[in-house]
Amino acid sequence: MLGSTRGTLTSDLRARVVACGETPRDAVVHDTAPASVTPGDTDVSGRPLYAPVPDLDRFFRPRSVAIVGASDGEGRPNTGITRQLIAWSQRVGARLHPVHPARPAVFGLRCVPTVAALPGPVDLAVLLVADPLPLIGELADAKVPFAVAFASGYAETGTDGALAQERLGDAARRAGVRLLGPNTNLNAFEEFRDDLEGPAIALITQSGHQGRPLFALQELGIRLSHWAPTGNEADLETADFLSYFAQRPEVGAIACYVEGLKDGRSFLLAADRAARRGVPVVAVKVGRTETGARTAASHTGKLTGADRVVDAAMRQYGVIRVDGLDELQDTAALLARARPPVADGVAVYSISGGTGAHFADLATTAGLRLPRLSAAKQRELHQWIPEYLNVANPIDNGGHPVGDWRGRKIIDALLADPAVGVLVCPITGPFPPMSDRLAHDLVAAAETTEKLVCVVWGSPVGTEAAYRDTLLGSSRVATFRTFANCVGAVRAYLGHHRFVREYRSPFDDAPRTPSPSFRKAQALMRPGQQLSEHAAKQLLRAYGIRVPREQLVTSAAAAVRAAAQVGYPVVMKASGAQLAHKTELGLVKVGLTSASQVRDTYRELIDIARYENAALDGVLVCQMVGHGLETMAGITGDPLFGPTVTIGLGGVLVEVLQDTAVRVPPFGEGEARAMLDELRGRALFDGVRGGPPLDVDALVEVVLRVQRMALELGDDLAELDINPLVVLERGQGAVALDALAVCHPEREPAPDAEAPAEQEDGA
Amino acid sequence: MLGSTRGTLTSDLRARVVACGETPRDAVVHDTAPASVTPGDTDVSGRPLYAPVPDLDRFFRPRSVAIVGASDGEGRPNTGITRQLIAWSQRVGARLHPVHPARPAVFGLRCVPTVAALPGPVDLAVLLVADPLPLIGELADAKVPFAVAFASGYAETGTDGALAQERLGDAARRAGVRLLGPNTNLNAFEEFRDDLEGPAIALITQSGHQGRPLFALQELGIRLSHWAPTGNEADLETADFLSYFAQRPEVGAIACYVEGLKDGRSFLLAADRAARRGVPVVAVKVGRTETGARTAASHTGKLTGADRVVDAAMRQYGVIRVDGLDELQDTAALLARARPPVADGVAVYSISGGTGAHFADLATTAGLRLPRLSAAKQRELHQWIPEYLNVANPIDNGGHPVGDWRGRKIIDALLADPAVGVLVCPITGPFPPMSDRLAHDLVAAAETTEKLVCVVWGSPVGTEAAYRDTLLGSSRVATFRTFANCVGAVRAYLGHHRFVREYRSPFDDAPRTPSPSFRKAQALMRPGQQLSEHAAKQLLRAYGIRVPREQLVTSAAAAVRAAAQVGYPVVMKASGAQLAHKTELGLVKVGLTSASQVRDTYRELIDIARYENAALDGVLVCQMVGHGLETMAGITGDPLFGPTVTIGLGGVLVEVLQDTAVRVPPFGEGEARAMLDELRGRALFDGVRGGPPLDVDALVEVVLRVQRMALELGDDLAELDINPLVVLERGQGAVALDALAVCHPEREPAPDAEAPAEQEDGA
Repeated sequence: MLGSTRGTLTSDLRARVVACGETPRDAVVHDTAPASVTPGDTDVSGRPLYAPVPDLDRFFRPRSVAIVGASDGEGRPNTGITRQLIAWSQRVGARLHPVHPARPAVFGLRCVPTVAALPGPVDLAVLLVADPLPLIGELADAKVPFAVAFASGYAETGTDGALAQERLGDAARRAGVRLLGPNTNLNAFEEFRDDLEGPAIALITQSGHQGRPLFALQELGIRLSHWAPTGNEADLETADFLSYFAQRPEVGAIACYVEGLKDGRSFLLAADRAARRGVPVVAVKVGRTETGARTAASHTGKLTGADRVVDAAMRQYGVIRVDGLDELQDTAALLARARPPVADGVAVYSISGGTGAHFADLATTAGLRLPRLSAAKQRELHQWIPEYLNVANPIDNGGHPVGDWRGRKIIDALLADPAVGVLVCPITGPFPPMSDRLAHDLVAAAETTEKLVCVVWGSPVGTEAAYRDTLLGSSRVATFRTFANCVGAVRAYLGHHRFVREYRSPFDDAPRTPSPSFRKAQALMRPGQQLSEHAAKQLLRAYGIRVPREQLVTSAAAAVRAAAQVGYPVVMKASGAQLAHKTELGLVKVGLTSASQVRDTYRELIDIARYENAALDGVLVCQMVGHGLETMAGITGDPLFGPTVTIGLGGVLVEVLQDTAVRVPPFGEGEARAMLDELRGRALFDGVRGGPPLDVDALVEVVLRVQRMALELGDDLAELDINPLVVLERGQGAVALDALAVCHPEREPAPDAEAPAEQEDGA
Repeated sequence: MLGSTRGTLTSDLRARVVACGETPRDAVVHDTAPASVTPGDTDVSGRPLYAPVPDLDRFFRPRSVAIVGASDGEGRPNTGITRQLIAWSQRVGARLHPVHPARPAVFGLRCVPTVAALPGPVDLAVLLVADPLPLIGELADAKVPFAVAFASGYAETGTDGALAQERLGDAARRAGVRLLGPNTNLNAFEEFRDDLEGPAIALITQSGHQGRPLFALQELGIRLSHWAPTGNEADLETADFLSYFAQRPEVGAIACYVEGLKDGRSFLLAADRAARRGVPVVAVKVGRTETGARTAASHTGKLTGADRVVDAAMRQYGVIRVDGLDELQDTAALLARARPPVADGVAVYSISGGTGAHFADLATTAGLRLPRLSAAKQRELHQWIPEYLNVANPIDNGGHPVGDWRGRKIIDALLADPAVGVLVCPITGPFPPMSDRLAHDLVAAAETTEKLVCVVWGSPVGTEAAYRDTLLGSSRVATFRTFANCVGAVRAYLGHHRFVREYRSPFDDAPRTPSPSFRKAQALMRPGQQLSEHAAKQLLRAYGIRVPREQLVTSAAAAVRAAAQVGYPVVMKASGAQLAHKTELGLVKVGLTSASQVRDTYRELIDIARYENAALDGVLVCQMVGHGLETMAGITGDPLFGPTVTIGLGGVLVEVLQDTAVRVPPFGEGEARAMLDELRGRALFDGVRGGPPLDVDALVEVVLRVQRMALELGDDLAELDINPLVVLERGQGAVALDALAVCHPEREPAPDAEAPAEQEDGA
């Protein structure tokens, strides 16, 4: 596998880190807030812009440990745990203090009856009791900074358990004791191999068992530095470990198995820290389907949130999401240990044209770039490879050359090509005369280059010496078992370094004080109510989002006057707080060209509304807007991340196709543009059937203004749906033709809301 | 892995086969054509409805073999091959005859100077010479039925090579010698393990190296029966081996690595044979991307065809397409050996709630059904599993119960549930106290059930005894290394048996004689030309596809008369053979309600056409059709499969989203409906925003009529594009508002085409 053994760690990291525009990471970085924020800062939504990084050194390397509920009685579960802790403490040289009210000693170690009776300072208390709550206070009195609670039966069992868990967490916070668990285990104190060098993987899992395959990577020569089995996260949560690990110099990548998040913002702040420091985070996040989400919730009692929102949030902060634990292993191992790419071109080199074609097919499908090798390079390769074989990339050597001195020449020639940043050699089956020598040559060549060398050992057997000894024995070659995992990991590797180069933390620019729009907007809010179309549009106008010229009128005569001012042709719509499906009800009339039409239409709309028992605040007389592309933009609340911003193509067809993109605020203009690029119908903005290109900039501007609303009003605004939002030709802007806004019931309206509201309506 | 060892083979197969509604397969099935077809039959397109199954028994088990170009000279490549053949012949007891003009003996075996001098009958000649062409005649004279040609430098090198390959193939066909290769190897004569029983995998690869991982499956206890390395397929092709293997009783599944197909129809006929016999075919097909396709072509010089067409064709005949060789191994092994499902419910059972949640998430994402276990079953499970753990499915045992007698009870209880057809136990990491006993219990329980038992051994190490000895040692447990491959294989397993139960060969009902429409249609064809809209619509009308009432007129007065007959309001369109983008050019006017409008419009259209230099054959006065959903249907030629039928959503939005589905004729109504279900916008047919459901039956009928056109006219019709094809409310039908038809240049028009054509135009 990649990375360095024996001493090259720091240079290795320096290389990686410098490429990420960071300072070298060979010392622990002290917890400093990013230049731009100071602890306690919040954005305008009241969410923190800063989270402290807990100092967990003593937690992971305690000098002395208390075991409350220690046992050496046969067949008691605590006995096994006690035994494991004793073995571990001997290894790491930690002092161990069994605590038991009755027993004088456990496994020959003297017991103290209570926590209070503990001799000297204790760094960590392992609580093996059914109800750890009463102990928290004692731990605080004894100045024990960390505790691990094994007990289960909390949030994973339902409401009562969730309440008990809350009490436990609150007690810990009040007492200043950092608590891991409940419903966790001893994985943090497994036996880590200390004979492996190079950047390590730090592991965070919300299920001990799910971490085992990653822990087992040590048997393949991959170094692991930490394992945090977070369990129910009553106090210490995934985010705490994420930000701590991101500061550790020995950590090359962080691998996570996540079932749910305790708090969205704290996770994003931790991911932001990792992104700022260029530390790759790879995660399996359960909850793609309702079944998975429900089951996960019932396991550790956490919110899984809307999956597409979690997915977007992770991408915003460069967290690499994978589906399988095998992908998690392969991707984290590669990212932890590979040097930064010098080029993004991938060369695929194989014994067989078939293998090359197959790998190239999967690689290009995944978006990897296989540059065509230069004519000169191909001539060079043909010194050793028969003329009739294709060496443009993929490179087919036909087999025989790898059996002799030519094999290494070919590999060196490929690695010397400036267009090549990654060399992948898929060996689908062991054919010792060829594959053994090939493996040796690749390992030797990898020692001489900064470039990434990957091998896929495709044999399902996996006991071959070339694999176990030669390839796994190398610290410079990344070895995979399947094409898919190699392609996925290489894509993640190139993507991560691209992301880090371009990353700019959105928290640095997050608005902290309300905009001038906010006061106007507040005045329009009606807690617990849906606003009328007219009011919703005023809300948009308050935030500088363009709406058609329109007037709200309450008489046919006023309608005619309004039409004259708005300008013919006009659209007329019934307007009322609780109105929905206006079009279906026939409460929208377009293309009215004369005073008489307007007068008749006014009466017609009033009649229909009466007939439908729809309460109106009047009729809207609106300017007709030119043709453009119907899109939608809106705000939706997410249980984990709060208000989120969605855009999509509007119109009935695409409503059915649900072509939308979502982001979690705060985010910058780059993400807003990226949202557009995510839409399957993106090409529509370039102009349809030779039509003119549309005003993408205007749409991006609207997205950013909607985000501003989400940040400033989000917690008062339950829902905002601008649909249709018509995007006109480039330079012509985007106009919100209709909008639905629903206010949250909870909060009271701002004290002085009413008065200005009237003025607004009159305006 | 699954399936039976020691003697239960036939019962096993009988179970499987009977479930497929087949006769037991414990004897070789003689090559009989399906009842409905006789050799030589073709469908109306002239493509065969029957392909003979070559008898390859003597090829795979030759009694005597000639090696032309045998050598024992040091360092000569032929020497290695000769040595391998000698070893092989001794193993299988075949007589070996080296052929060499000069040498008296090779490795002590007496040489004959020429093929003619061969003593007695020879089943197979291995041709190690650079140019095998001159030998073909000699082989025929010596009555040698089979030959293998190693020589390369044919189609894979370009045009000249392709011609040489054609000459070689033709020579073999003329001589009646079945030839494997050129550009192939000895994989067909590898050492197969004969100590493995149970249904076997038969392997077809167009690249020797790509077959190695599958060949290696024998080391994991999976039986392999054959390996056909087809190389360039000058004569014997993938389809020949596919249909041969499908008849062999020992073959449980056929695994293919395909880079390109020699002929689309012969592949489909072979796949049809496998489908009729319920033999699963699993294939990796390179060519998802242009790069992959190009590289594959340069490897064995085959056409890869349009990937989405290949993809559709494979699905039509139940060929299971996978991306990776690892998926190919896992899926083929499961399908070869698993008994048919008794239920499609999947129970996920694990040591850890996290593992269960994760697997359930991936399984349900893939469309597997995890039935919620009954309250009674859950109560039963809670006898052994703590109350607070979730056992609804996935089933979390919390770990401890698997360590003792309760483990087996739980497994038996799950297997006894009638809702459960598949039991999956993901073991993410080895934890010997639990996982070893769990593995043993699963293996023991699997011996007692017809149901499918799958285990995922998630450790990346793979040297653990529980995996190597216990799990791989079992013939009844299907063992996987990743969640993804287990989910994919189980989905393929359930899907295959569903497919086989419902399969009805489209070749049985394929039309063999032209419909009455054909003659009319022929008369309208204009070789090498694009038909006018009017003529194209007549073509549709000839096949009973509804078009608007319309008349082609050449004067304003005639236009007014036509409008009166068609009925107001009318649409008017310029009509001309080479016209395209009429709408953009302003050559379409809708909603004309009066004679004067019609008269003015006629002149306007003529003026625009003159201005645009567009030659017109007149102006169409068409009935206006009610509102509906715009779709499209058409015919496109595919290099591999000939004319294919495409449907899609019309309208500019969805053109951009390219929401289409394609099928290769012949296919039945079921596939036509399945095409609709493939469309992302499928829901639009159910009615939009509470609108009425649309006439799906009418659209299906159009698809079948378009297929008829593809079959009868396909080779004369280069392209047909009905767009828009408006689907009206249920019961109202579907109407082709416009159509584009282009005729192939090559073929001459049918002799009597002209005369009736006039009549048609006049009609």
